[in-house]
Amino acid sequence: MKTERKTILLTNDDGIDAEGIYSLYRTFKKDGRFDLRVVAPDKESSAVGHAITVFRPISVIKNYQEGEFFGYAVDGTPADCVKLAIGAILDRPPDLLISGINRGPNMGENIIYSGTVSAATEGTVCGVSSIALSADDLQNPDYSYASGFALRMATKILENGGLPGGTLLNINIPSLEKDKIKGVKLTVQSDIGFKDNFVKRQDPRGRDYYWMDGVFLERNVSEDSDYNAVKNGYVSVTPIHYDMTDYKSFDHFKGWNMEKLK
Amino acid sequence: MKTERKTILLTNDDGIDAEGIYSLYRTFKKDGRFDLRVVAPDKESSAVGHAITVFRPISVIKNYQEGEFFGYAVDGTPADCVKLAIGAILDRPPDLLISGINRGPNMGENIIYSGTVSAATEGTVCGVSSIALSADDLQNPDYSYASGFALRMATKILENGGLPGGTLLNINIPSLEKDKIKGVKLTVQSDIGFKDNFVKRQDPRGRDYYWMDGVFLERNVSEDSDYNAVKNGYVSVTPIHYDMTDYKSFDHFKGWNMEKLK
Repeated sequence: MKTERKTILLTNDDGIDAEGIYSLYRTFKKDGRFDLRVVAPDKESSAVGHAITVFRPISVIKNYQEGEFFGYAVDGTPADCVKLAIGAILDRPPDLLISGINRGPNMGENIIYSGTVSAATEGTVCGVSSIALSADDLQNPDYSYASGFALRMATKILENGGLPGGTLLNINIPSLEKDKIKGVKLTVQSDIGFKDNFVKRQDPRGRDYYWMDGVFLERNVSEDSDYNAVKNGYVSVTPIHYDMTDYKSFDHFKGWNMEKLK
Repeated sequence: MKTERKTILLTNDDGIDAEGIYSLYRTFKKDGRFDLRVVAPDKESSAVGHAITVFRPISVIKNYQEGEFFGYAVDGTPADCVKLAIGAILDRPPDLLISGINRGPNMGENIIYSGTVSAATEGTVCGVSSIALSADDLQNPDYSYASGFALRMATKILENGGLPGGTLLNINIPSLEKDKIKGVKLTVQSDIGFKDNFVKRQDPRGRDYYWMDGVFLERNVSEDSDYNAVKNGYVSVTPIHYDMTDYKSFDHFKGWNMEKLK
């Protein structure tokens, strides 16, 4: 009996024409074991967090790369793409979702702003095993190692029958040549973030406006963190979830007698 | 010696002209113990998640209510408002941030899309004790009880020297008259969410477009959850954080031998 081929949905936040998603596509297509679907934003959608589009309709057009049908370009956010793919465009839910490869890292508290991570979170919300993949290089990322790693990870996940319900993997790849990469580490989210900087100006009518900028801020970087792994040449794999409950604070708040605030 | 007056920053995602934020303002102003600052989006920004604006400048104008200066209206997201307030508009960080009162609940997995919760999360990222406040009524919310509760909770938080670092409170108020509210419960985030529905249409040029819609989906609703508390007439207070690490999955993944995926 023929084993049913698995379907993989590719999406991102850099836009459907970005090199990162196309590198994944080529690598998986060459491997030949999986059916690929691409549903991605029609333009760059970085820093959109987990936004969804509810106040206007979302248009979807077919996208072609090198003369061949590539996928669906959506004028929405990464989370919109995933909702639309699973809820309307695909015949059945994919067996795996891969979001990326992002140009630049998604680590520490910065993942709350990340469209790349948000797409994988949305996949998980929709019940699909999902991973977010980012290359730690904003300038000239080489996606070939990251794409090969994604293929090995996808195989591993599908061999294991998927990820545990509610869990996704946030993966960051160091900016190193293949033989310089030291290994793969299971990590926790670090405390690194940005310190905001604002440049204030006035428009010709005298109204204030601001440009947002930021400087990198390294706080507590624990030995087992995403940031520390990548800095030391390891691929970082952080299992994350969207249950934001801060269970460890419950003991603290029990002393507050909140019921008296009624 | 005179005790220094505490400063409270009010923001929201329904926009600076929404009744919810103005109700908070009136209640705290009448109380008279705190200095108030308002920095909020200039228009409704629901479902924007934790988006920030990095590709264009953000304009800020003064907003007036009933002829008096009320606060700063920002053409950005709720997270932008908080970053701008703390990083550029205010002389010093506020002692407390209150985001809301949102028209409609923010519970379960839906909080990942919430601009209201995102503003409070951003406050926490910036080191400010922050709460998100939502009224479980999309139609005709009565904000007077919620505003009074916010005042009692603000007092409690400031008396205790603030919230624990990294923790914020996500508060949902039942849609009931004051004497019908049964009490206050410390809760966990539930699994409730939406099942997406898409309405597909074609524009006059034959291009597909979709309207996103959804039906309410009740999954496992545990006894101690946000949803269960509000449904039973209690104010729900969920301590949440932005460490998305899924610690409980680590044992599962240790068996995967990820280091071999290098």
